[in-house]
Amino acid sequence: MKKIINNNINIVDDMLSGYVKSHSDRVKFSEINKRIICRKNKKQFNKVPILIGNGSGHEPIAVGWVGEGMLDANIVGDIFSAPSGDLIFEGIKIFKDHSSILLLISNHSGDVMNGEMAIEMAEDENINAKCLIMYDDIASAPKGNEAQRRGGAGTTFVYKILGALSEKGADIKQLLSLGKQIIDNTRTLSVAISPGTSPITGEKIFSIKEDEIFIGMGVHGESGYGRQKIQPSKKIISFMLDKIFDDFNYKSGDIVIPFVNGSGSTTLMELLIIFNDLEEYLSKYNIQIFKPLINEYITTQDSGGFSISLLNSSEEMRKLWLEPSSVPYFHL
Amino acid sequence: MKKIINNNINIVDDMLSGYVKSHSDRVKFSEINKRIICRKNKKQFNKVPILIGNGSGHEPIAVGWVGEGMLDANIVGDIFSAPSGDLIFEGIKIFKDHSSILLLISNHSGDVMNGEMAIEMAEDENINAKCLIMYDDIASAPKGNEAQRRGGAGTTFVYKILGALSEKGADIKQLLSLGKQIIDNTRTLSVAISPGTSPITGEKIFSIKEDEIFIGMGVHGESGYGRQKIQPSKKIISFMLDKIFDDFNYKSGDIVIPFVNGSGSTTLMELLIIFNDLEEYLSKYNIQIFKPLINEYITTQDSGGFSISLLNSSEEMRKLWLEPSSVPYFHL
Repeated sequence: MKKIINNNINIVDDMLSGYVKSHSDRVKFSEINKRIICRKNKKQFNKVPILIGNGSGHEPIAVGWVGEGMLDANIVGDIFSAPSGDLIFEGIKIFKDHSSILLLISNHSGDVMNGEMAIEMAEDENINAKCLIMYDDIASAPKGNEAQRRGGAGTTFVYKILGALSEKGADIKQLLSLGKQIIDNTRTLSVAISPGTSPITGEKIFSIKEDEIFIGMGVHGESGYGRQKIQPSKKIISFMLDKIFDDFNYKSGDIVIPFVNGSGSTTLMELLIIFNDLEEYLSKYNIQIFKPLINEYITTQDSGGFSISLLNSSEEMRKLWLEPSSVPYFHL
Repeated sequence: MKKIINNNINIVDDMLSGYVKSHSDRVKFSEINKRIICRKNKKQFNKVPILIGNGSGHEPIAVGWVGEGMLDANIVGDIFSAPSGDLIFEGIKIFKDHSSILLLISNHSGDVMNGEMAIEMAEDENINAKCLIMYDDIASAPKGNEAQRRGGAGTTFVYKILGALSEKGADIKQLLSLGKQIIDNTRTLSVAISPGTSPITGEKIFSIKEDEIFIGMGVHGESGYGRQKIQPSKKIISFMLDKIFDDFNYKSGDIVIPFVNGSGSTTLMELLIIFNDLEEYLSKYNIQIFKPLINEYITTQDSGGFSISLLNSSEEMRKLWLEPSSVPYFHL
């Protein structure tokens, strides 16, 4: 297997060790468990803490987003595996002296099951932890069944905007309310181009023909709209945005924040071309673009592919989107 | 070819269009030529302008580094091709009213030839443009012949530190002097793991066996120390750092800035593991680490691989390394 690792048992721990060493100005291991990464606080810590548990192998998400203005802690699972309910609960307990705690959960079965288990364990100990289940991938469930959709790259809007809001001293009710608004106004669609390699098994994660792409595949190879012959970028983007526009009722004058995410081996060159095509499509409908995010943030190892996420934004969301953050791997 | 592009003629222009649209708060096309990307200025522009011309296909370098605190303009060549001398001269002429201009050149034959031609054209019109040729790749020429070495990822130290110094109002003499010091104290060694695909031809850039890596290959496939069987990360890093330590006389107590760069499809997970191993190696020699840079910055499309660059730093360099910069794609 061509991965630069020491062995496939210590991958996550070696990675976290490198991460904490390299960004020790901003992040640290929790005192209780090295699979929980916490932010270092520069100022008095009187905000609602925001946590997320997620599987590894998708870096920089979510460990790269720990810091001022985004996450207070990340509970880190094994490669492609949600952390256990016990571990997430350990993460929550770190903040037990706070009047409330927010656990974000991207809608994948393991993450939801373990996250909800941790919330119940917290309730049993009178810790006020609430969860927000995030979903956005239109290929994973039809219109009308939005809450069954997978969490995709569009969850990034929740992390960033709620991170900024909590920094300003918002309470849990305000956070949950704005979080729900963001989810309701976010749509994501992804394309898989070539499979990444599992660092555990050395096997390709899925298979696809040399002249095909797969529209709507989930980050773990889950099914979506199916295979197509590869076409010029403009045609692919037009197909994807037609699907998104069928799903959400955009109106002339709407102000949208776009996020073009690369899956691992898709070049920034391509992501910028994709953004160029996306901008042309939106401008035809008189939809304005507000400060886009373009890079590799939610990856699946060295997979080729990308996703487009659109947040139909309010003024409050746009303001919070631009708030400064000190996290190592999120940059507008 | 599995690239998300519209056609292989407009790749660079489509990409630049996407780039300027997405970061229009910080960058713009020059008025004279859409292959010259300039920074937008927030304050009075009375610094020595810093320019670089380079081939495309290696993004985010160098176009992603245009902005306050780094580059004033990037003259953009075709895929893997230096811009012409005429085009570089057009870029220089934009700043002809300045008392001096600095053109950075990464040591590759096309870049040097065309850059030096542009400098001569400037001299003929009484424009005071100087160039600084940057080199750092120890695999490309032996100790004693440092000036024959290729420019590798370690040139990043020059961009960032001189960018910060020029922002403070330094003159051309100070910039050239510190630039030379940085080059003298920088060493880089790279590893190629798997070939990227040329977006022009659709062909793989080089070939390598499934169980082999190539130590010291240049970003265009140039030869270096040769092929080896793949090994655990610690062994590869140890081999590489032994070579760097043979080349440069590090002393206990030295303070080094490390840069671990990914070539395109190597995961952040791997880059962090590499950094972890690098930190362990340096600590054995009592060499301190100062704020490392770890991510994909100098890529060759979807190539697998990485490089390690070390700058043995002075206090002035470290201070300038940390100076804020507003460029879209450089983040400590």
